[in-house]
Amino acid sequence: MEGYWCFLALLASALLLGFCSVVFALVWVLHYREGLAWDGGDAEFNWHPVLLITGFVFVQGIAIIVYRLPWTWKCSKFLMKLIHAGLNTIALVLAVIALVAVWDFHNAKSIPNMYSLHSWIGLTAVICYALQLVLGVAVFLLPFAPGSLRATLMPIHAYFGLLIFGTVIATALMGFTEKLIFALSSPGYKYRDSPPEAIFVNVLGVLILVFGAVVLWMATRPHWKRPQEPDLKISHRNGGTLDKEGSTMTDCSNAEKSDVEFNSEAARKRNLKLDEAGQRSTM
Amino acid sequence: MEGYWCFLALLASALLLGFCSVVFALVWVLHYREGLAWDGGDAEFNWHPVLLITGFVFVQGIAIIVYRLPWTWKCSKFLMKLIHAGLNTIALVLAVIALVAVWDFHNAKSIPNMYSLHSWIGLTAVICYALQLVLGVAVFLLPFAPGSLRATLMPIHAYFGLLIFGTVIATALMGFTEKLIFALSSPGYKYRDSPPEAIFVNVLGVLILVFGAVVLWMATRPHWKRPQEPDLKISHRNGGTLDKEGSTMTDCSNAEKSDVEFNSEAARKRNLKLDEAGQRSTM
Repeated sequence: MEGYWCFLALLASALLLGFCSVVFALVWVLHYREGLAWDGGDAEFNWHPVLLITGFVFVQGIAIIVYRLPWTWKCSKFLMKLIHAGLNTIALVLAVIALVAVWDFHNAKSIPNMYSLHSWIGLTAVICYALQLVLGVAVFLLPFAPGSLRATLMPIHAYFGLLIFGTVIATALMGFTEKLIFALSSPGYKYRDSPPEAIFVNVLGVLILVFGAVVLWMATRPHWKRPQEPDLKISHRNGGTLDKEGSTMTDCSNAEKSDVEFNSEAARKRNLKLDEAGQRSTM
Repeated sequence: MEGYWCFLALLASALLLGFCSVVFALVWVLHYREGLAWDGGDAEFNWHPVLLITGFVFVQGIAIIVYRLPWTWKCSKFLMKLIHAGLNTIALVLAVIALVAVWDFHNAKSIPNMYSLHSWIGLTAVICYALQLVLGVAVFLLPFAPGSLRATLMPIHAYFGLLIFGTVIATALMGFTEKLIFALSSPGYKYRDSPPEAIFVNVLGVLILVFGAVVLWMATRPHWKRPQEPDLKISHRNGGTLDKEGSTMTDCSNAEKSDVEFNSEAARKRNLKLDEAGQRSTM
């Protein structure tokens, strides 16, 4: 893999940033706020940032770059698709629970739902994410879709995946802004007075933004893309479309026979050649 | 150009969304708020969203996709670089004036500066944007940098350009959230009561987000990339590096002799071949 050590350093940074974001979210609600509970009060609201940062930011970010881990290139594409879809499903479930938490909290306090830009964009992101997951499973995981359809939809799937991820991060930053203004309202302890909690959550926002930037860089470098399957057949129609996307391999051990092919420069070059025709998006 | 009508439809959408965003910003401050002035009061603050949406969102977005307009492929690369740098300079100047406006407003009202996540990320984005512009001019516009340096830095320049653009949009959404919570504070006319102004600015936020999504899609499609210069010399070192990035042409008329070459399928294919080596980022 070209730039292996750089990839490794960025992966370590992403994991560290993501892990720290989750820890910061927990410290925020457990130390600065009312803790965690499911009682319709502030402690129930607190599940909202914790679950969204854990699932919708950290887990989604890892799901995006999971194909690019060179150690997984020995595994079958199908297995990797299962892992990709599985991680995204976990993120979606956590996001839905987070929405229920804030809905419950609003209803208990008679606060209207869906009035803020944060809620408009956040709910849209969750709906788009669910649609993306369902369509992704139907087209890329299940064996029914023809290769030409997969080739057509792959750049769109990849682009919307990254767009939703970026939008989720923007929504998180809006959410921090809202919560800090509402929660820090005592005289001398307002957001504008920069109390420790305000600084702490601002740093959390920066951590999440940098995490997103690292994930997006890793996900868009053409030379870090998983090499194409060796049994891929290409028909040259309009510059070439994929006839077969699914792998015949079903687990990592079965893939060993193809190790040399997968990890070879030749495989990487063929992979890049496919990019040339714009069949697989670099996004 | 492949997918010409799709490109045209997206370009029209981007222009319409960007134009509507600027109009919405003006209607917001002129109809719902205190208008525009330079008096240290609310009307001076209002320059902040108007100038940032005009320059840092709309003009920056156009600067990003200006290379991709197929009608400009007849023009020299140098002229297009001048236009790209010029538009970004306009955006930067407007952003700096917008920062001065909010600084003045805060100082006049004894509101601390730089306490919010919006201000942290926003100021960082402006500083990074200025650095990106200076480095971009030094490396890609001026004729001193060797081709190998340009080839190395181009993917980084392109990535950070799009990252800053996305971050600016996220910062704008945070800014709307802040302003709506602070400004809509009368009983029965709070943000949570969804008065017309709240809905209006939420729609403005959605417009900007969709504008950003359209620009990012257009900027990352490999087949809409400007074909490489015909006088480009390629040395095959590590898969090829650019020996000469600058064009010998200085204006559109001089380029006419190369029209066939520029617009030909051969030029497009050679361009894609360069992408293959990852020298020019698709981001």
